Amino acid sequence: MRKPRVVILGAGYGGMMTTTRLQKTLGTNEVDITLVNKHDYHYQTTWLHENSAGTIHHDQTRIPIKDVVDFNKVNFVQDTVVSIDPDNKKVQLEDGELEYDYLVVGLGFETATFGIKGIEEHAFTIQNINSARLIRDHIEYNFARYNNEPEDRPELITIAVGGAGFTGIEFVGEMANRVPELCKEYDVDPDKVRIINVEAGPSALAGFDSELVDYAVKRLEAKGVEFMLSTMIKEVTPEGILVERDGEQELIKTNNFVWAAGVRGSTIVEKSGFEVNRGRVPVRPDLRAPNYDDVIIVGDCALIMNEETERPYPPTAQIAIQMSYVASDNIKALVRGSNELKHFKPEILGTVASIGEGDAIGVIFGKRKLFGWTASVMKKVIDNRYLLKLGGVGLLLKKGKFNIFK
Amino acid sequence: MRKPRVVILGAGYGGMMTTTRLQKTLGTNEVDITLVNKHDYHYQTTWLHENSAGTIHHDQTRIPIKDVVDFNKVNFVQDTVVSIDPDNKKVQLEDGELEYDYLVVGLGFETATFGIKGIEEHAFTIQNINSARLIRDHIEYNFARYNNEPEDRPELITIAVGGAGFTGIEFVGEMANRVPELCKEYDVDPDKVRIINVEAGPSALAGFDSELVDYAVKRLEAKGVEFMLSTMIKEVTPEGILVERDGEQELIKTNNFVWAAGVRGSTIVEKSGFEVNRGRVPVRPDLRAPNYDDVIIVGDCALIMNEETERPYPPTAQIAIQMSYVASDNIKALVRGSNELKHFKPEILGTVASIGEGDAIGVIFGKRKLFGWTASVMKKVIDNRYLLKLGGVGLLLKKGKFNIFK
Repeated sequence: MRKPRVVILGAGYGGMMTTTRLQKTLGTNEVDITLVNKHDYHYQTTWLHENSAGTIHHDQTRIPIKDVVDFNKVNFVQDTVVSIDPDNKKVQLEDGELEYDYLVVGLGFETATFGIKGIEEHAFTIQNINSARLIRDHIEYNFARYNNEPEDRPELITIAVGGAGFTGIEFVGEMANRVPELCKEYDVDPDKVRIINVEAGPSALAGFDSELVDYAVKRLEAKGVEFMLSTMIKEVTPEGILVERDGEQELIKTNNFVWAAGVRGSTIVEKSGFEVNRGRVPVRPDLRAPNYDDVIIVGDCALIMNEETERPYPPTAQIAIQMSYVASDNIKALVRGSNELKHFKPEILGTVASIGEGDAIGVIFGKRKLFGWTASVMKKVIDNRYLLKLGGVGLLLKKGKFNIFK
Repeated sequence: MRKPRVVILGAGYGGMMTTTRLQKTLGTNEVDITLVNKHDYHYQTTWLHENSAGTIHHDQTRIPIKDVVDFNKVNFVQDTVVSIDPDNKKVQLEDGELEYDYLVVGLGFETATFGIKGIEEHAFTIQNINSARLIRDHIEYNFARYNNEPEDRPELITIAVGGAGFTGIEFVGEMANRVPELCKEYDVDPDKVRIINVEAGPSALAGFDSELVDYAVKRLEAKGVEFMLSTMIKEVTPEGILVERDGEQELIKTNNFVWAAGVRGSTIVEKSGFEVNRGRVPVRPDLRAPNYDDVIIVGDCALIMNEETERPYPPTAQIAIQMSYVASDNIKALVRGSNELKHFKPEILGTVASIGEGDAIGVIFGKRKLFGWTASVMKKVIDNRYLLKLGGVGLLLKKGKFNIFK
């Protein structure tokens, strides 16, 4: 009898943890597992703002897939997913095609532009290793250019960020730490550098406790970050960003605009005919896609409602990882012919946003507030815990963040 | 009685060594010395190709002027020279004006474009710390861009260099060492990167011993450098360089074009009414400018004929440094009311061109040929000797190149 074929698309938090859990709990005699990923590495999406700012190197953020996946147990295909054909149980890749019996979709997020003109052409996004490294190098290059221009061009050393959500705040926090280093490396006067955060809503970090938000904003302002709240970005041009506040428009000249205000699920999922809501598939309680009993969706492509708030849970690493537990258990059950599938129930242990080196804000266990250094240590503990789960002590020692006193 | 005022323009090899020698040999009671320079640092022009390639950091190449000039003995003015008025003994600066009794002009070189269209707009030049750092960052940025482009754009990782003279050869040598590092940092396939050297003449390193040239070219080719000899650059465009060989034109697509084929003396000297020949002042044997008994020209702005070859000596650090000895002695004589001035006679001790880490070619004492590691050590010895002369053991230890086994 042919072994059931499980195909996992994407080696992000959800796909990666599902793969490593399956390789531990299922024998090679009972299943044929294939992991498909564009790159031969996994990366910590939650660290990309640091790679983008240049405060940590991308090699710390990424993990070779071969270091955590046992290639004797799992087939690894390095390729790009083009589309899924769930009716015929096939996946189209750029360089081939795969058939599956059970599919796990963990294709992650894409940037949501909300139809704002010019974002696709002129904005940088913190999306993957390539795009993060590009931001780092783009900013460095502009600092290098600054002293070579015949006229003063402040837009080269003005960094503007769209969105004061998690990513936007964490990125400006890192940039505030990075700017003094950049000024030294490129002989630029620190007083001339600007870091501007533009947010459409009336407050940074919407949904966060206001005491924590106040702390974060004050700390970032003290480091030179300028906040423009209740300000809409109307258009992004090669010259800068056109913003509107109280009906008044203004062009902020910048050659370094990072859009960090919105994500959506992978468009591949939508194009493949799955039902979507804002780019994410409203999965069943057992994480299976509506209408397809053999397709499980994990991570940022899956939409789960928070029944208390009647809003979807935000797409976070924490939820993606928790989903992978249920996904791997349910795949195991399906492979073994059982239909007793587990239901997914997110458990928000804590949420911590870093605001630069040794500084952060957060809430743990749904109530306890953390500030400053304590919060920054907690964030590192959370990240290290993930590495331990994913690849054991070896991976933790290799890629962990231990420098809590720096 | 008013002390004679000596003004030195430029803190390059010539101006810097003249200043430090004058501060040692003349008392503050007998002279008033002012050094004018655009930046508050001196730099080793002969190391800029390494800064451009990114193989050494520019902070090793530059030396704060305050570290070698005694500000109790010398006035330092950080400003840009606009023009000289030798008839009225005045120097116009961007932010002021200086009067002098004796002037030393060491304003260095500028790029000679030979009228080739597009060089000013689209070519990078290895000229100073700012322009070298820009080349490093431009190439890095293009490597970062490469993996973010929807289509293959080989021009981003094609490095073209105009000129196989000293600078062009030394730069491609460094780039050949740097490319493997860049490929690792930016996840680029080394086989896709090209380094192309375009030279109008039939041979690289014109004027050098042919056995040494053959060695250099073979070593560089083995490291992947492509040479296009007897090839003229007709035009530089945003897309690349249009070259012509044997009457056939070809567009070499590149976004990284470095023009290293020609230098001329500072245009300020020409604009100020001094007699010039190819942008350099044909100085008298005592290094004074024709018609001006109180103006000494040193370094790349001074033209000295080699009577043996009936061609001008090339503008090198070695000659600039040797000129500073005569210049400082002659200034001392003039200040003390003597008219017995020394004549300058260049003494070519050796010429060594590096072709990458631990590899070089050279001739010393006019006859002995050096290859490979020996030559590379000799080059470091020459550079270290200069540091010792300029700033003593302290400077040598701080900025010297000692890692000969690397």
